[in-house]
Amino acid sequence: MAPGLVETGLLAVNHDDNKSKSHNLKADVAPAESPAQTTWETKKEVTGWIPETDDDFAILAVRNLVLDICMQNGGGHGGSALGMAAIGVALWKHVMRYNPANSEWFDRDRFVLSNVGYDAWTMDELKGYGDAKLNGYKTIAHAHPEIEVPGVEVTTGPLGQGIANAVGLAIASKNLAANFNKPGHDIVKSRIYCMTGDGCLMEGVALEGRVIVLRLSIALAGHLQLSNLVLLYDNNQVTCDGPLDWINTEDVNAKMVASGWEVINVADGRYDVRAIVSALDLAKNSSSKPVFINIRTVIGVDMASAGTAKAHHGGFDQDSIAASKKLAGLLPSSRYEIPERPLQFLRESRDKGTAAEQSWDKSMDKYAEEYPEEAAEFASRQKGTQGDFEKVLNEATSFKGRYIRNGIREHAMASIANGMAAYGPGTFLPITATFFMFFIYAAPGVRMGALSNLQVIHIATHDSFAEGQNGPTHQPVELDSLYRAMPNLSYIRPCDAEELIGAWSYAMRSVHNPSMISVARDPVGEVPNTSREGVQRGAYVIQENSDAAITLVSCGSNLHYAVAAAKKLEQKGTKCRLVSAPCLSLFDQQDSEYRKSVFPLDGKPIVSVEEYVATTWARYVTASIGMTSFGYSASNESNYERFGLDTAGIEKKVNKYLKSLNGGSAREAGWQQL
Amino acid sequence: MAPGLVETGLLAVNHDDNKSKSHNLKADVAPAESPAQTTWETKKEVTGWIPETDDDFAILAVRNLVLDICMQNGGGHGGSALGMAAIGVALWKHVMRYNPANSEWFDRDRFVLSNVGYDAWTMDELKGYGDAKLNGYKTIAHAHPEIEVPGVEVTTGPLGQGIANAVGLAIASKNLAANFNKPGHDIVKSRIYCMTGDGCLMEGVALEGRVIVLRLSIALAGHLQLSNLVLLYDNNQVTCDGPLDWINTEDVNAKMVASGWEVINVADGRYDVRAIVSALDLAKNSSSKPVFINIRTVIGVDMASAGTAKAHHGGFDQDSIAASKKLAGLLPSSRYEIPERPLQFLRESRDKGTAAEQSWDKSMDKYAEEYPEEAAEFASRQKGTQGDFEKVLNEATSFKGRYIRNGIREHAMASIANGMAAYGPGTFLPITATFFMFFIYAAPGVRMGALSNLQVIHIATHDSFAEGQNGPTHQPVELDSLYRAMPNLSYIRPCDAEELIGAWSYAMRSVHNPSMISVARDPVGEVPNTSREGVQRGAYVIQENSDAAITLVSCGSNLHYAVAAAKKLEQKGTKCRLVSAPCLSLFDQQDSEYRKSVFPLDGKPIVSVEEYVATTWARYVTASIGMTSFGYSASNESNYERFGLDTAGIEKKVNKYLKSLNGGSAREAGWQQL
Repeated sequence: MAPGLVETGLLAVNHDDNKSKSHNLKADVAPAESPAQTTWETKKEVTGWIPETDDDFAILAVRNLVLDICMQNGGGHGGSALGMAAIGVALWKHVMRYNPANSEWFDRDRFVLSNVGYDAWTMDELKGYGDAKLNGYKTIAHAHPEIEVPGVEVTTGPLGQGIANAVGLAIASKNLAANFNKPGHDIVKSRIYCMTGDGCLMEGVALEGRVIVLRLSIALAGHLQLSNLVLLYDNNQVTCDGPLDWINTEDVNAKMVASGWEVINVADGRYDVRAIVSALDLAKNSSSKPVFINIRTVIGVDMASAGTAKAHHGGFDQDSIAASKKLAGLLPSSRYEIPERPLQFLRESRDKGTAAEQSWDKSMDKYAEEYPEEAAEFASRQKGTQGDFEKVLNEATSFKGRYIRNGIREHAMASIANGMAAYGPGTFLPITATFFMFFIYAAPGVRMGALSNLQVIHIATHDSFAEGQNGPTHQPVELDSLYRAMPNLSYIRPCDAEELIGAWSYAMRSVHNPSMISVARDPVGEVPNTSREGVQRGAYVIQENSDAAITLVSCGSNLHYAVAAAKKLEQKGTKCRLVSAPCLSLFDQQDSEYRKSVFPLDGKPIVSVEEYVATTWARYVTASIGMTSFGYSASNESNYERFGLDTAGIEKKVNKYLKSLNGGSAREAGWQQL
Repeated sequence: MAPGLVETGLLAVNHDDNKSKSHNLKADVAPAESPAQTTWETKKEVTGWIPETDDDFAILAVRNLVLDICMQNGGGHGGSALGMAAIGVALWKHVMRYNPANSEWFDRDRFVLSNVGYDAWTMDELKGYGDAKLNGYKTIAHAHPEIEVPGVEVTTGPLGQGIANAVGLAIASKNLAANFNKPGHDIVKSRIYCMTGDGCLMEGVALEGRVIVLRLSIALAGHLQLSNLVLLYDNNQVTCDGPLDWINTEDVNAKMVASGWEVINVADGRYDVRAIVSALDLAKNSSSKPVFINIRTVIGVDMASAGTAKAHHGGFDQDSIAASKKLAGLLPSSRYEIPERPLQFLRESRDKGTAAEQSWDKSMDKYAEEYPEEAAEFASRQKGTQGDFEKVLNEATSFKGRYIRNGIREHAMASIANGMAAYGPGTFLPITATFFMFFIYAAPGVRMGALSNLQVIHIATHDSFAEGQNGPTHQPVELDSLYRAMPNLSYIRPCDAEELIGAWSYAMRSVHNPSMISVARDPVGEVPNTSREGVQRGAYVIQENSDAAITLVSCGSNLHYAVAAAKKLEQKGTKCRLVSAPCLSLFDQQDSEYRKSVFPLDGKPIVSVEEYVATTWARYVTASIGMTSFGYSASNESNYERFGLDTAGIEKKVNKYLKSLNGGSAREAGWQQL
C-alpha cells in the first residue's frame, strides 16, 4: 500500500537520556516518529539551557558570534543561525572531512550553502558583514555568500539552488569514485552535505521552497541512489510570511520516503550535538539512498522572538543577548570574543583536517604505484585538464556513465550541471540540452552558473519557427533578449556546420563562463565564407563590397534568408554587404577599430534580420527586421512568409526602407523597426 | 507514522466483472492498490478487445479519428490520444457539465488542456491539424491548442502549465461559490478537470513533469482543499525518452496522499469507461480534498508500437489501423468516417448540455428574485465589469477571501493567476508580487499569460540595488531585457507615487494583457513634473529646453539620480532635457510625431541611465549608462558609486561623452556604452 514507507521505516535519533537535567522542554519527549507535527512551545519561554560539555560551549560561542554580527547592523538573517548552531558544531567539528588550511583539498566533503572556519574567514571579515558604509564592501562575508570566497562551494543566493548544486556535486563524486576507485583504494570518498532551511549564512526554505530545484533534484537524487548525499533540514516551522502551516500542510518525511530517500529524525536540533552526530554517522551507512535528516530546531532560540517569523531578521532583544553572553562567562557588553575553551575545541579541526589531507595524499601515492595510468588520468581530471572525457566509459547504468536521463526538468538540469562544474574547475564539463524556448525554465540556474563563472555548455535546440509546428508556446521570440543581456554568458547562434565548430571551440576554451549554443531544426546547408575563426570575434563580414548600398546582418538559420535576399536585391541592382553575427557579446569585446570595420559609421543603412524581437540589435544597426509579436502555429514556410522573414519579405522591407531614406543618412534617421 | 496514508486510504475502481470475456490482459487482475508498479505486457500483443456497448463504439470512433489525423501528416502526438479515448468518452459523454452549443456558458465544468466536441471543432478543422501547406494555417486544430479557440480554457502548450491553470480555475470557482451561493441556490458549482499525461491534444507529462507548476500547484491545491478539482493522470509509464522508470522511481500515489489529495486508482483506462465514470462520480463526493485519479493506460493501445516511446509520435502501422477500422464496421481505407451508432451516442451531449445551461439560467432567475443585490453583483462579475472587487470580503480563512498565501512559488503563482483570469474575462483580477529578480522563476507563467492575453498584474518589487544588500543573486541587471521584449506584456517602471498611480491606471484598464509594475525599495521622493497621464504614453518630457546640449532619459529610482546629475551639469553650464520613460512598449505604440518630440532626431546626444544592461535603450538613445556585469553585495550607496550610476558618476560619464563627440552628431557616432 505504501511500500516505500513500510520497507524503509523512519529512524529516529533522540539522545536526551544523559542530558535530561539540563533540558526542560516538552518537545524532548515528543514522539520521534513525526517531528513535523510536533509543536514547540518556546515563544517567550526561557529554555533554561545550561552549557556543560565542550559541544555546549562551542554552540554557545557560535551563537554569541551570530548575535554580535546581527547587533552590528541592527539586523541580518540571525534567527536560523542561532537555531542551527548545534548542527554546525556537529558537522564542522565532528563529522565532515575537510581541511581548514586548504579549502581546495580535492577529496574534501562538500558542504553546500556556506560555512565558516577556513583561514580566509577572519574575525575582521565577519565584522564587515552587511556593513552599510562605503568601505564595508571589501568583506567576503556577504549577506549571500558567493563562490569566489574560499570555502564556499557554490553561489546559492536565491532560495532553492543549493540542493540541485549538491546533487550535481554528489553525482560528480560518485562518477569519479566509480571510474577511479579500486579494491583497497577508495581515493574518492567525498560526501556532500546540504543544509536547507531559512538562514543567515545558510539559505533555503521549507521543503517546497523554490520548486524545481528542491523537488525535482530530490526526485533525481532518490532515483540515482546518491547515497553520498545528506540533506539536513532545518525544521523550524517558520517562514518569512509566518508559521509554515499557513502555506503548507504536507508530510515532508513521507514525501522524502516516496522520493526514495532514507529519513532520519532528530528531535532536538537546538542543543543535542551528539544526536546530530549520531544521525550523520548513521547516514554514512546508507548504501543506496540519499539521506534526509529532519532536524527540529527553533528559529532565534533563547531570544524573546524565538519560534516566530520576527526572528528571521533579528534584531534581538538586549536581555536575551546579555543572558547568552553571561552563560558563556563573558561580560554582557562583550563583542566578538570567543572564550578559550570553545576556541581550542573548535581549532582542533585544523590539525585533524591537515592530517586527513596528508593521509589522502599518501593513499594517492600508493594508488599511483599500483595504478600509474589511472593515477595520471585522475591527476589530469583533478587539475581540470580537458581532453580526457573521451576515456570515460559510457555505461548508462552505473555512475561510470556520462549521460544523465533527467526527464523534463530544465531548471534542475542547469543547477545540477552547475554543481558538477563546481566539484573542481575542469574536472567535469557538464553539457545540458533542451528546446531553446524551454531554457526559460532553466533561466534561474543558467544565471547562477554565469554569476558563479562555472563552465557549462547549454545546447538550445529548435530555436526558430522550424520547431515542429508546436506554435507560439514553443517559438522563442524574446528569450534571446534575456540571454544576450546576461553577463558572463556567451549566447552563440551559429548559422552552419563551420560556425557550429567555431561555437564548440569557443565554448570548450571558455573555462570561466557558461556558453549557450543555440541551433535551429531547419534543414539548412552552408553559408558561403563562414569561418570558425570568425565566430571567435562574434561578428564578421562574409561578403564585402565597398559600393554596397546596404549591409544585412543576421545569424542562425535566419542568415540563410538574408543571404538569399541579398542575392535578389543584387539582381535588381542593390549592392549588399553581408555580416554573420553569431555572438553579440563576443563582438562587444573586440576593439573599436574592428567593430567599425564590421558595422561602418558611414551613415549607410545596416539592417538586422532575425525572427526574434529586435531589442538586442539596435546598438549596431540602423533598422531591424524581426518579430513584434508572438509566433504562430503553422508550417515553417508559412510563418516565414507570414512575418515577412522569408527572402521575399526581407527584399520587400529593405526596398521600402531604402526608398524612405531617399539617400539620406540612415543613422540620422534613427533606428527603425521594418 | 504516515498519517496521510492511513487516514485516507487508497480507493480502487476496477469494473472488470462484466467485461471479462472481451479482455485477456494480465493486468486486469493486477492488485489495484498500486497500479504505479503494475507492468503491462502489451507490446506487440493483440489485446483482442471487441467493442460491444455504446461506450465501446464511442471509444473506437474516437480512436479511428485519431488514426486518420495522424495518418494525414505521417505523425502527430497520437499515441496518448489512443490510450486516453476511454477517459475522453467518460468525461465528455457522461460526467462533465458543459454545453457543446455554447463554449462560454459561465457555470460549465472546466477541462484543462484541450477538448473536442464544441461546434467550432468541425471535421474540416480536424483535417487541417498540423497541415504543412500554406493554406493549412487557417485551422484551429493546432499541435498545441491555444486559448482563442472555442472550448480551449487556457493555452497550456509547454508541459506543466495546465495544472497550475486548473488550480487557478478551481480557486476562482470556489471563491465565487463561497461569495454567492445561498442555501438552496448553488448557482456556482463548476468543477475543474485536468488531464496530465503525454498527449496529442492533451499535453503534460509524468508526475514530476515540469517542476513548479505540477509539484507546487499540487501542494497548494491540497492545502487549500480544492475539492472541486480533479486531476486525471494518464499513467502510461512512457515518456519521450523511453520508459518512465529510466528517469523516475517515485511512488506517485503516496506523494499525492502526502500532498493532501484523495487518490483513486482505475485499473483499466483503455476500455473501461464505466470504471472511469465511477471514479469521476466518486470524486464528486470528496468534501475537502482535491482528487487524483491514477488511470492505467497504454500509449498507442492496439497498435504495433503499443506501450513504447515510439507511439508518442505515431506514425502507426497499416495493419493495426486496418484492424481498428474493421472493428468499427468500416472499410480499412475509410478516412474521417464516424459510424451512426457512436455519432448519435456522442451527439446526445448537445441536447444534454443545452438543457443543463437552460436549467442553470432558470435557477439564476430564481436566485435573482430572492437575492436581487447579489444577483446584480454576480452578473457584473460574470460580465467582467470591474470596480466591484472592493465588495469581496477579505476573509483569509475561507474561499471568500482575496489573498492566497502562496509561499515561495513564483512560477505556480503566475500560472495560477492565469487560471483565475481565464475563469471569465474580468471576473477576477489576479495580482501577484515578488522581488523583480525572482520573476525569473515566474517567467514561463508570465509568458503564457501574455500569450493568452490574460489580464494579470504582476508587482515586481526590489528592482534596484536597494534590495537589502543581498548581492548580485538578488540584483536584476538583465531581466528587464526579457520582459521589455515580451510581446503583449507592459513592463512599467514608475519613478514616483504620481507615476505609480499612472501605472495602476493603465494596468487596470489593460483587459487584454498582463502588466508588470516594477518598483524599487529606495526611499525616493517625487520627481518634478511627472504625470500619471505621461505614463500612458510610455515616455514623456519632464524638462524641456530648446538650447539643451543633451537629453537624459531614465525611469524608476534611477531617474532621481539622472535628475540630480542634470542639475549638477546645468550648474556647470551644460543645459539638459529630461525624459521620464516608465514603459518602452507603450512608447513604441505612439505615433512617429510624438516619438520624435520626445527623442529628437537632431543629432544631439541622448543618454539613458539605468542600473540594468542597456540592451533595451539603444533603439532610442545615442549612448547608455548602465550595467555590463552582475551587481555586487554591498550597500546601496556604495553600489551606485561603484558602478558610476550615482549623481557624480553620471555627471562624469556625460562630460566625457560630450568631450568625445566634440560637437559632432551623436547619431553619426553610433550608439555607445558609457
